[in-house]
Amino acid sequence: MKTDPGRYFEDFRLGETIRHATPRTVTGGDAALYTALYGPRFAVQSSDAFAGAFGYPRAPLDDLLVFHVVFGKTVPDVSLNAIANLGYAEGRFLRPVYPGETLSSVSEVIGLKESSNRQTGVVYVRSTGYDAAGGAVLTYCRWVLVRKRDPAGPVGPEVVPSLSGAVAPADLAPALPALAPEAYDAGLAGSPHRLGDYAAGERIDHVDGMTVEEAEHQIATRLFQNTAKVHFDAHAATQTRFGRRLIYGGHVISLARALSFNGLANAFALAGINAGRHVAPLFAGDTVYAWSEVKAVAELPGRRDVGALRLRTVATKNQPCGAFPDKVGDAYDPAVILDLDYWALMPR
Amino acid sequence: MKTDPGRYFEDFRLGETIRHATPRTVTGGDAALYTALYGPRFAVQSSDAFAGAFGYPRAPLDDLLVFHVVFGKTVPDVSLNAIANLGYAEGRFLRPVYPGETLSSVSEVIGLKESSNRQTGVVYVRSTGYDAAGGAVLTYCRWVLVRKRDPAGPVGPEVVPSLSGAVAPADLAPALPALAPEAYDAGLAGSPHRLGDYAAGERIDHVDGMTVEEAEHQIATRLFQNTAKVHFDAHAATQTRFGRRLIYGGHVISLARALSFNGLANAFALAGINAGRHVAPLFAGDTVYAWSEVKAVAELPGRRDVGALRLRTVATKNQPCGAFPDKVGDAYDPAVILDLDYWALMPR
Amino acid sequence: MKTDPGRYFEDFRLGETIRHATPRTVTGGDAALYTALYGPRFAVQSSDAFAGAFGYPRAPLDDLLVFHVVFGKTVPDVSLNAIANLGYAEGRFLRPVYPGETLSSVSEVIGLKESSNRQTGVVYVRSTGYDAAGGAVLTYCRWVLVRKRDPAGPVGPEVVPSLSGAVAPADLAPALPALAPEAYDAGLAGSPHRLGDYAAGERIDHVDGMTVEEAEHQIATRLFQNTAKVHFDAHAATQTRFGRRLIYGGHVISLARALSFNGLANAFALAGINAGRHVAPLFAGDTVYAWSEVKAVAELPGRRDVGALRLRTVATKNQPCGAFPDKVGDAYDPAVILDLDYWALMPR
Repeated sequence: MKTDPGRYFEDFRLGETIRHATPRTVTGGDAALYTALYGPRFAVQSSDAFAGAFGYPRAPLDDLLVFHVVFGKTVPDVSLNAIANLGYAEGRFLRPVYPGETLSSVSEVIGLKESSNRQTGVVYVRSTGYDAAGGAVLTYCRWVLVRKRDPAGPVGPEVVPSLSGAVAPADLAPALPALAPEAYDAGLAGSPHRLGDYAAGERIDHVDGMTVEEAEHQIATRLFQNTAKVHFDAHAATQTRFGRRLIYGGHVISLARALSFNGLANAFALAGINAGRHVAPLFAGDTVYAWSEVKAVAELPGRRDVGALRLRTVATKNQPCGAFPDKVGDAYDPAVILDLDYWALMPR
Repeated sequence: MKTDPGRYFEDFRLGETIRHATPRTVTGGDAALYTALYGPRFAVQSSDAFAGAFGYPRAPLDDLLVFHVVFGKTVPDVSLNAIANLGYAEGRFLRPVYPGETLSSVSEVIGLKESSNRQTGVVYVRSTGYDAAGGAVLTYCRWVLVRKRDPAGPVGPEVVPSLSGAVAPADLAPALPALAPEAYDAGLAGSPHRLGDYAAGERIDHVDGMTVEEAEHQIATRLFQNTAKVHFDAHAATQTRFGRRLIYGGHVISLARALSFNGLANAFALAGINAGRHVAPLFAGDTVYAWSEVKAVAELPGRRDVGALRLRTVATKNQPCGAFPDKVGDAYDPAVILDLDYWALMPR
Repeated sequence: MKTDPGRYFEDFRLGETIRHATPRTVTGGDAALYTALYGPRFAVQSSDAFAGAFGYPRAPLDDLLVFHVVFGKTVPDVSLNAIANLGYAEGRFLRPVYPGETLSSVSEVIGLKESSNRQTGVVYVRSTGYDAAGGAVLTYCRWVLVRKRDPAGPVGPEVVPSLSGAVAPADLAPALPALAPEAYDAGLAGSPHRLGDYAAGERIDHVDGMTVEEAEHQIATRLFQNTAKVHFDAHAATQTRFGRRLIYGGHVISLARALSFNGLANAFALAGINAGRHVAPLFAGDTVYAWSEVKAVAELPGRRDVGALRLRTVATKNQPCGAFPDKVGDAYDPAVILDLDYWALMPR
């Protein structure tokens, strides 16, 4: 059998390390496509001149482009037979990545838990993206609900990893170059608001909406070499419970981040992912909106140039966010599709 | 308030200078996307080897890609609350721009005129695109109809700028490198017709048609970091008079220019915009056609390598242009969507 | 007449050489778009680091991107008035092409055969892609059914070229660098199966399916500067027998090749096209699947690093390929849209 049917729950072994195909040199072409697909306007990633004045050697790639490329590689080995992507934790963007660098991914199986109905199980992995020299650039945990090949198949002991609810500020941005906040041109960046202008508890409606087309999410998801068939095969999708193609959850994350520019224009880089959940699926034709809550404003130990905002960004479909649609108790407003808790960097 | 609601008519001050976010390094990735979105085939922009033989250091970016990037930056400050983009004048492409250069934009408010119903007003701006060293690469005037925040709100005295009806040949292409028309390979360029083969009054049907999809215009408009919500939000658009997303007017300009290759293959660069008007909106699913009229054939003072054609290109939707659908008196043929009067360069 | 109406059958002369417009510098931006449009995951084209370890100076462009760019240039001169693209033969990928190289195309008319109804004729051309230094990078023959301007128009004697049914292994990959199969990392490449693991007669269902959108094939076809109006003009298409836009046949070839990764992950480059036929048209909304048959496993004279697989890849629409839908006698299964016989390289 030369084709890859993907792993089922029984195929994962606790502690196992999986090296993923395909290494990928990410270029300025990918960066241009990323801009075209999501419309981000953060100046650091948009302009070599702006990034250079601020202290970067050149404009780094969007952190989420790096995330999607690293994530995409894990799909054939981890989530080809997944039913749902359940969550993220302990995500750390370890250093800026630049056009021309080659990324590859490795995952470690850190937890396995069969579902009570024995039809499925939850697989917990820690995935790490590496550069061509073997240096880690990104690491995160995610857990996915994966089909069992055989409900009666034997499984090992249940291990649920103990994951941190938040990345500590001391663990953020370990290799960020020394930056020059006095050279950060707020006018060119699009907003006068710096770290000190935000306060925990503040909520921001990002106002704008973005409608998603089938061609757009397919182009994006292929760019990331993510092969999950649910995103691409409309013919097979007619036999699924949704009856149509599902949009890659990361597409929503990137849209929400791009929309968040309106209110968070100086949140110039991502540093950590504390928690993330795809609350509901998105389909082509839906319009995505987002709002954010500031959960904390943190100094980074030893740095006087930048600090971090802990943000919770909630994305909705087909409902603007002026009323901040949210979770009430355990139940989400039916418009909510994403709940992402992360750290972003801001100049002080 | 950290989000940007956009300016209303009352927020503009005559003589005010607005520095726009976000600076943008335009790369070969953007050039590839531009080709993929519009299909231009002009050899100078398509081939480093061709451009090099002709006298350029390398293939420059398409002039309209530069235009759209410069224009896109002005949208959050100038036209987020615009109802219509009324016109263009005094456009000058000041020098070729190459992949890797960083562009930013500044606009000056040169005119303000409240509408008689006091609900809206016309804002006239002169926008200029700059390179990273502060050199101007493009300048043009446009005027837009902008909502007032409050119909009763006081406004300053009416100032309507006196704009030239045409850019003079002496003002075209001030920094174009010395070119070698004898090295311009007409076979590779796709047409034997040079400047002297065109005559004022000549009309050319560009024959081909191009149907536009929602994904295409959204990808293009985001690439230009143009944030006007009318192009992206289908949910909100259901409450508008059109009931659907409007396509960025610049998308039509680029399609018409690409279609004009068939008949104007050697019009290798744009040099000026004399006047331009978006006569009617374009929607996804419509097919764009174009025809052109030669208004003048001009020498450029001091240059024996290239001259300029003054062209008027008319684009239509869902109607081929063999019959040259046009304006009769003040009324346009209902198929017309664009009327653009500009200067293009041609080898002599 | 300055516009190009395209050639009719009577306009071709046996032995004539046609230099095509427009030369094209193919960049990393084009490579990114190619990945985004088709989703290939072959490691050699995806990663500079992987390609470098294997013996390439850097990641070459996907061979089919080169093919489409070379092909696209021939369309305005050869197939603008074509009714159907009938077949391919004697295709040879002569050397790897790298980002930054400029390609141009030349075709020689090698056969002409009027149809019995005198309304059309078959034009046979040998097209060759050249680099900026005039070195050939790709050559192939194709034949197309072209309209006559006038059924009564006189035509020359019928000449049907004698084309080889297969490219000989000795003619494959004449300028491939010396590669290091021991440095070919099968884990990163995504499959342990090398040349010796395949056997003639073996059939592989590539499993995955890909649904095609109008925006996708238009973006691709414009990227290749292929101007055939049948792909772009939905308004005119309403008057055709299909009533809608036809998808460029090469789009199917690229989709099938990308899908073939699942089962042929180490078929790292294309070396020859023995025969090819677009059996039926593809339309937007259709889902493409593919399967392959190994027709031969060949050594390349003088090379111990890589060998060649002769493959026949069959693509279908809206029908998965687990049952290997095929030709029975002269009749194809109605789901089949492509039948391509080609050589791919694999490490030994």
